[in-house]
Amino acid sequence: MKPVFAITMGDAAGIGPEIILKTFQDKETEQLNLLVVGDLAVLKEVKKRLNYQDLKLNGIQSLNNAIWERGMVNVWDMQLLKPEDFHPGEVSQKAGNAAFKYVVESIRLANDGQVAAVVTAPINKEAIQSAGHHYAGHTEIFAAYTSTKDYAMLLYDEKFSVIHVSTHIPLADALSGLNQSRIERVIQLAEDCMKKILGRSPKIAVAGINPHAGENGLFGKQEIDIIQPAIENMKAKGINVSGPHAPDTVFLKALHGDFNIVVAMYHDQGHIPMKLLSFDSGVNVSIGLPIIRTSVDHGTAFDIAWKGIARNESLLKAIYLAEQLTQ
Amino acid sequence: MKPVFAITMGDAAGIGPEIILKTFQDKETEQLNLLVVGDLAVLKEVKKRLNYQDLKLNGIQSLNNAIWERGMVNVWDMQLLKPEDFHPGEVSQKAGNAAFKYVVESIRLANDGQVAAVVTAPINKEAIQSAGHHYAGHTEIFAAYTSTKDYAMLLYDEKFSVIHVSTHIPLADALSGLNQSRIERVIQLAEDCMKKILGRSPKIAVAGINPHAGENGLFGKQEIDIIQPAIENMKAKGINVSGPHAPDTVFLKALHGDFNIVVAMYHDQGHIPMKLLSFDSGVNVSIGLPIIRTSVDHGTAFDIAWKGIARNESLLKAIYLAEQLTQ
Repeated sequence: MKPVFAITMGDAAGIGPEIILKTFQDKETEQLNLLVVGDLAVLKEVKKRLNYQDLKLNGIQSLNNAIWERGMVNVWDMQLLKPEDFHPGEVSQKAGNAAFKYVVESIRLANDGQVAAVVTAPINKEAIQSAGHHYAGHTEIFAAYTSTKDYAMLLYDEKFSVIHVSTHIPLADALSGLNQSRIERVIQLAEDCMKKILGRSPKIAVAGINPHAGENGLFGKQEIDIIQPAIENMKAKGINVSGPHAPDTVFLKALHGDFNIVVAMYHDQGHIPMKLLSFDSGVNVSIGLPIIRTSVDHGTAFDIAWKGIARNESLLKAIYLAEQLTQ
Repeated sequence: MKPVFAITMGDAAGIGPEIILKTFQDKETEQLNLLVVGDLAVLKEVKKRLNYQDLKLNGIQSLNNAIWERGMVNVWDMQLLKPEDFHPGEVSQKAGNAAFKYVVESIRLANDGQVAAVVTAPINKEAIQSAGHHYAGHTEIFAAYTSTKDYAMLLYDEKFSVIHVSTHIPLADALSGLNQSRIERVIQLAEDCMKKILGRSPKIAVAGINPHAGENGLFGKQEIDIIQPAIENMKAKGINVSGPHAPDTVFLKALHGDFNIVVAMYHDQGHIPMKLLSFDSGVNVSIGLPIIRTSVDHGTAFDIAWKGIARNESLLKAIYLAEQLTQ
């Protein structure tokens, strides 16, 4: 059988359900076996309201019951949520709890080998946390439920990608926690992942953490003490890596084709340029997990939820990238 | 007499001299009285090598000798440097020393009221420092020579602008030094400057310093303890200011027209998006000085110096912005 890709439904009150249904209308996805992990009752309501007449929904609890044909949406029906349990566009504890459980179930399916990869639709942190699930985001849930300590968040775009040494922690902790072995590990994760995507070794740039990458120690010593030695060690292993580069120009160089991926030292260093260049179309990849996980690079967009106007480019790209990574 | 605008020649080994000569060929600058503060001998050599036959050079040491006519380049001739003193594209102590002195002289001319504003071409920090002048950049020289403590760096672009709470210091110092009164002062400087540029009060966004602007304290407390109170105080004074916004999406919102200017908490938070969006065409403005000073937003570009290929868009925009700010 062809590999199956799980797509979590995300927060039901957000744009997840509708961008998923849109994606099933896309001709390019017809060739893929996509399994929505979510709630059939919610998807039925979205289908009705947004008039997706050409789609059929098939609620299943075993892949034996899946029907792989054009226009058929196979839904791994968790039966956690009904349309009357929440209001589109509003934070809901019940929708948050359900969204969390779709993710956990998709991880189980991947760990079992029933699905080849997991693609996630957006969850709402406030909703998740109101339901008592205290995670900073998807990546942290995947790490916890696969017992992974050594992972990193990569934002992928055709133009260039960014991988993060740290993400959802205070900036002060990103600074105080900066260490050589973590940087070396993230350079290795960048090498491994981009090699799969590009089919060859990537050109990797490592950003500094201080203005002008420290200006030879004048504006900070982390480049000299921590980042440079990490780069030298990875160069010695044959990896095509350079830096530390001035953070304010390295992304422009990557955009111009000098590098395939930039190693960012903290969340915003990588997120500011990526959001600016590829909002709505970037893909978020969790690297270093035992399972393949990609995600849309946008939020639940409560302000436009259930209106049929949300774009599904990022979800499509996340699905295609998951497929590439399984090959 | 019409106001005179000083343009410093910048590092002679860089692209400063040629982008200045290019600018005198630009029809739009004909109406302005531009005074180059630099070295006549160097400009003569650049004119010869790059074949700017339509320009005439007029070395002066008093504005009484200036000739304000088309094609005439009035040069405040400091007589510090000859072409044989340095090599184009190479760091030179002599060129660095001269570049520093052009800046100091232009500040003197502005303080004297002889020029209405100063526009600076790029200097090379290594060259400046090798000559014993220990400044992080132009802004710091202007601050020192005008005894100004309360200034800020603003990067201007037609699309949107950024003003910085801190700039050329280690990121750790930007964090530990963050304080409410400085943020309030920078919001006020943003209001005052953008009002002059736009002719009306700007829409100001203040960025957080932590991922997701701290996510309600989960990823850092500076937003709650320092940034939010500063915003509230300035709102109470009638300023159209909002935030703290998530640093990774606020620039996209500004780009889409939601804000005219973003208050960035540290150098790279503001520089990463601006360099990505407007490399070669942005303008750097020192706000809060007793004199008006704008600058190109690029470096000396030694790799392409004296080849006639450097673009002068940023210098032109810096000149026009200086003119706007004097009105």
